[in-house]
Amino acid sequence: MTARVLDGTAVAAALRAEAAPAVAAFTARAGRPPGLGIVLVGDDPASEIYVRGKLKSAGEVGLRADLERLPATASLGDVLAIVDRLNHSDAHDGILVQSPLPAAMGADAERHVFDAINPAKDVDGLHPANVGRLVQNRAALASCTPAGVIELLERSNVAISGARAVVIGRSDIVGKPMALLLLHRNATVTICHSRTVDLPNVAAESDILVAAVGRAAFVTRAFVKPGAAVVDIGTTQVSDRALVERLFPPGSKRHEAFLRRGSLVVGDVHPEVAEVAGALTPVPGGVGPLTIAMLLKNTVRAAEDRLGR
Amino acid sequence: MTARVLDGTAVAAALRAEAAPAVAAFTARAGRPPGLGIVLVGDDPASEIYVRGKLKSAGEVGLRADLERLPATASLGDVLAIVDRLNHSDAHDGILVQSPLPAAMGADAERHVFDAINPAKDVDGLHPANVGRLVQNRAALASCTPAGVIELLERSNVAISGARAVVIGRSDIVGKPMALLLLHRNATVTICHSRTVDLPNVAAESDILVAAVGRAAFVTRAFVKPGAAVVDIGTTQVSDRALVERLFPPGSKRHEAFLRRGSLVVGDVHPEVAEVAGALTPVPGGVGPLTIAMLLKNTVRAAEDRLGR
Repeated sequence: MTARVLDGTAVAAALRAEAAPAVAAFTARAGRPPGLGIVLVGDDPASEIYVRGKLKSAGEVGLRADLERLPATASLGDVLAIVDRLNHSDAHDGILVQSPLPAAMGADAERHVFDAINPAKDVDGLHPANVGRLVQNRAALASCTPAGVIELLERSNVAISGARAVVIGRSDIVGKPMALLLLHRNATVTICHSRTVDLPNVAAESDILVAAVGRAAFVTRAFVKPGAAVVDIGTTQVSDRALVERLFPPGSKRHEAFLRRGSLVVGDVHPEVAEVAGALTPVPGGVGPLTIAMLLKNTVRAAEDRLGR
Repeated sequence: MTARVLDGTAVAAALRAEAAPAVAAFTARAGRPPGLGIVLVGDDPASEIYVRGKLKSAGEVGLRADLERLPATASLGDVLAIVDRLNHSDAHDGILVQSPLPAAMGADAERHVFDAINPAKDVDGLHPANVGRLVQNRAALASCTPAGVIELLERSNVAISGARAVVIGRSDIVGKPMALLLLHRNATVTICHSRTVDLPNVAAESDILVAAVGRAAFVTRAFVKPGAAVVDIGTTQVSDRALVERLFPPGSKRHEAFLRRGSLVVGDVHPEVAEVAGALTPVPGGVGPLTIAMLLKNTVRAAEDRLGR
C-alpha cells in the first residue's frame, strides 16, 4: 500500500484561483487592491526565499504587496516604527513581519513586534487578541499554516469530525492553533511535545497525525496507525549525505536533487510512513504552498473587514 | 482501595491565608485595599449563592468588594454602562460579571460584556486578549476554575509533567483553558467532548482526568484508569430521588442531605469512581472553593499590576 498524496500544491492553486475574483471585487469597490506590507529584517537566506514566494504569489492574484527591508543591525525601535506606519496606512490591510528577527534584537523582540501589529491587520494571526478569538471559536485571523492544513484536509475529504487527532509540537504559530482548529471541527485532539512519554504509541492512536517538530524524518512507521492521514509540517535543511541516503535510495529523485544541490529539505515524516499511512502530505509540495495561499486569503479577508463587507 | 481526597477546601484556605498579607501590603502601599466590582443581573438563585460566597471571601481577606445589581429586565446597554464605570474606577482592580446573563438579553450578550471589560481588570480571564496571552504561556489573568485545579494538583503532589491528561469538556471558561494550563506544565493533553468516539476508553488512558461536562455522575468506573487522579468540575442540582438513591445509598450522609433539602448537588463523577481512582476531588468541597480563592488571587494580582509592583 502507498499513501494517497495530499496535494498541497493543487489546493493552494485552488485557493489562489478563488482569491483572484475576491481581489478584483474588492479593488472595484475600494478603488485600490488589498495591500500587504511585509517587513524583512536582516538577510537570513531562508527568509529571503519565503518572502520572495509571498511577494510573487500576492502579485499573481492582484494584491499589492510592499516589502520593507531593514538591515540586520536595525533596532527594535526601527521595526516598531515601520509597523506603526503600516498600522496607520490606508493602503495596507495586512502586515507580516517575517520571522525570525535577528538574534541580536533580543529574545523578546518578536513578541514586542507582534503585539504592536494592529489586530485587524494581523494576517499571521499572532496577536493575542486574535489568538484569544481563535480559542473562543470566533471569526479571527488564524495562523496561516494550521489554517492551510484544515483547508487541505477538508478539500481532500479527510474526515475531521469524530476523528482522533494528534498534533506533535506545541508552538504558538503551529501546534497550538492547529489543535484548536481541529478541536472546533469536532476532532478529539491530543497535543504531544518533547516531554510526552511513549510518543510513538500516543501518536499511533490517531486518525489524523500532524507533525510540527522540525526534526528530519522523526516520525517513523511506529508513530502511524495504518490508514491514518499524516500531515508533515516540518522542514529541515539536511546536508548530511549519510542521512539523506538512509532516507532516499541512490537513484531516487530526491537523492538526485541532493546530489545537484548539496542539501535537501526533509520533512518531519520518514519516507517509510508512505507504506503505512492512508494519506500523506509530501515535502516539498504539501503544507508549504498552503501557508502562502492562506496569507493571501487572510489579507483579502482583512481588507474586506476593514472596508465593511 | 479508596481514592485519596484532593481537598479543595484546604487548598482554598491556604490560598486565602497567602492572599491576606498581600492584600495588607497592597493596602499599605496604595492607601486603599484592592477592589473588586461584581455585577449581578437578575435573580438566578444559583448566581445569588455564588455571588454571596465571593463577597464573603473577599471581605475575609480584606478586599473591597462591591456588588452592582441590575434587575432581570435590564438592557445590555445597562450592563455595559456599569462595566464602563468600573473600567474607569480607580478603586476597582477587578471586574466580574456573573454568568449567566438573563436569556432575554440575547445569545451574544455575555460575549459583548466580557469583551467590554478592561483586560487589566478581567479577573475571570474571559477577554480574548487574556485568553490569547494564556495560549502563549505569558503572564495572564487565567480563568479561575482551571487555575484553581492547577493549584490543587500541584499542592496535592499530583505529578503533571509527563502525565497523560484528559479534559472532558471544551468550554471557553473551563475546558479549553484547563487543557492549556496542563499543556504548559508538560502534560500530554487530550480534549474530549460530545463528539468524541468511545469516550470511556479515551478517558481511561489518562493519569489525570478532568471532568467538566455538567451531567450528574456521567463519569463512571469505565472512564478511569486505576490510580488516576480525577478532578470533578461539574455540579448538577439533582432532585430526582431515584437517581440520588442509585448514587448514594439510604443512610449515607449525602442521602440524608438530600432528604433534608429535597435536592442535592452532584458532580460529573460517579461515586463508584472512588474505588478505582488514586485521588479524587469531592463535590462539594473540591473545585468550588478553589474558584473563589483564585478570584481573590487574580484580583490582588490585577491590583498589584495596576499599581506597579
